[in-house]
Amino acid sequence: MDLYEVEGALVCTRRINGLKHVSLRVLRDGRGKRLVATDPVGARSGNQVFTVSGSAARYAQGDFSVLTDLTIGGIIDDRDKESSVSAAKPDGAPATPSKKCLKL
Amino acid sequence: MDLYEVEGALVCTRRINGLKHVSLRVLRDGRGKRLVATDPVGARSGNQVFTVSGSAARYAQGDFSVLTDLTIGGIIDDRDKESSVSAAKPDGAPATPSKKCLKL
Amino acid sequence: MDLYEVEGALVCTRRINGLKHVSLRVLRDGRGKRLVATDPVGARSGNQVFTVSGSAARYAQGDFSVLTDLTIGGIIDDRDKESSVSAAKPDGAPATPSKKCLKL
Amino acid sequence: MDLYEVEGALVCTRRINGLKHVSLRVLRDGRGKRLVATDPVGARSGNQVFTVSGSAARYAQGDFSVLTDLTIGGIIDDRDKESSVSAAKPDGAPATPSKKCLKL
Amino acid sequence: MDLYEVEGALVCTRRINGLKHVSLRVLRDGRGKRLVATDPVGARSGNQVFTVSGSAARYAQGDFSVLTDLTIGGIIDDRDKESSVSAAKPDGAPATPSKKCLKL
Repeated sequence: MDLYEVEGALVCTRRINGLKHVSLRVLRDGRGKRLVATDPVGARSGNQVFTVSGSAARYAQGDFSVLTDLTIGGIIDDRDKESSVSAAKPDGAPATPSKKCLKL
Repeated sequence: MDLYEVEGALVCTRRINGLKHVSLRVLRDGRGKRLVATDPVGARSGNQVFTVSGSAARYAQGDFSVLTDLTIGGIIDDRDKESSVSAAKPDGAPATPSKKCLKL
Repeated sequence: MDLYEVEGALVCTRRINGLKHVSLRVLRDGRGKRLVATDPVGARSGNQVFTVSGSAARYAQGDFSVLTDLTIGGIIDDRDKESSVSAAKPDGAPATPSKKCLKL
Repeated sequence: MDLYEVEGALVCTRRINGLKHVSLRVLRDGRGKRLVATDPVGARSGNQVFTVSGSAARYAQGDFSVLTDLTIGGIIDDRDKESSVSAAKPDGAPATPSKKCLKL
Repeated sequence: MDLYEVEGALVCTRRINGLKHVSLRVLRDGRGKRLVATDPVGARSGNQVFTVSGSAARYAQGDFSVLTDLTIGGIIDDRDKESSVSAAKPDGAPATPSKKCLKL
């Protein structure tokens, strides 16, 4: 499961039928790479989230027939925002040993 | 689900039987890497799209017996083209908080 | 199966139902990239672990209905810590030819 | 589906039973990274090909019991060889908008 | 299927039940990155091998209930060792057009 920051919504009035009417979010990793995930938890721009990929993403969406390969699994209450998504921090200081999720 | 720009068609008169007669597109990510995807939505060169991978790609194609591992899931109406596909934009400015899909 | 160091717990009181009450750990690879894994073995911060991914991750968790895509498979008794997780060590010295797992 | 150049055959008289007697090819991507794929189409050194990965690779091989995770799906008639496999070409010129497959 | 060099054994007396008593090997790719694979063929340190990933890895192990995501599929008789594993060799000389597997 990977860590991302939510950048915004992907408004998409027409798409393949298999995505139905689920919400899509644009996510960004620590290097600035963007991906698209389905969102069953109502994440907002700026939220730190972790995602579930592969066939598990379809179960995570709550409906196996939704044709996603990436689903948001939870929103992280990240007080040390910079470090949680940063992809490369070799000399990573003390680091935050635990992170909490927001109440969804 | 990943974001790509459509570069063009992959004309292929003969291929493994499992790909049948579906349309193939050459996609390019923000770093210039090229991939091939099946296209059930009729994307054209220059379109910004997102893709569905893994076993979901076969369902997304509308025919599970098509042996693809990457299918275009929707076409994005991207007014801020450079940023949506760019793979690395660490100091990413305000950024576009939402994107819209074209009517397919 | 990949090698990681455990950075800490991911406390998450509410999440998608499919993750149930399993323990989540934040892992870090040799380049500092962070991931999240479910933990059936009780790993602690600083432990060197290897992970099982894909659909096998759900079986590895001991409950296929847990919607993980990454599960800790074992804790490594790593006496040469720096080398086991380092992602790029081209001129890698003699290197440790064998590693042992901790008694779980 | 990814784009590669065929580098040569992987002669392997004994292997796990699950690979049976299928032909193996060494492929190389635009950065020089090498992979191994099963080949149901008879590709030769220097051919530009695209591959099918994951569980679809087994179906693509024409025999689901062949334990491959990468199968050649078609041979590309690439007149602009350098650009089709190159992994990183940020300022990629006009580029070839369409590619053709060889008659297999 | 990917190419690796075997670095050594991963001795692990206790692990998740799903890995049973199969042999584990630490592999290293051309950039020095280390992974762990199950080994049904008896590879030794210094051997060049190729691996099978995903769900095929479980079948390749000869027992689908072994929870691996990476299994060694064969040992390569590599007379041009440096080139077979090297991940990035852009101006790759004539290169070895064919490789042979060791009798297992």
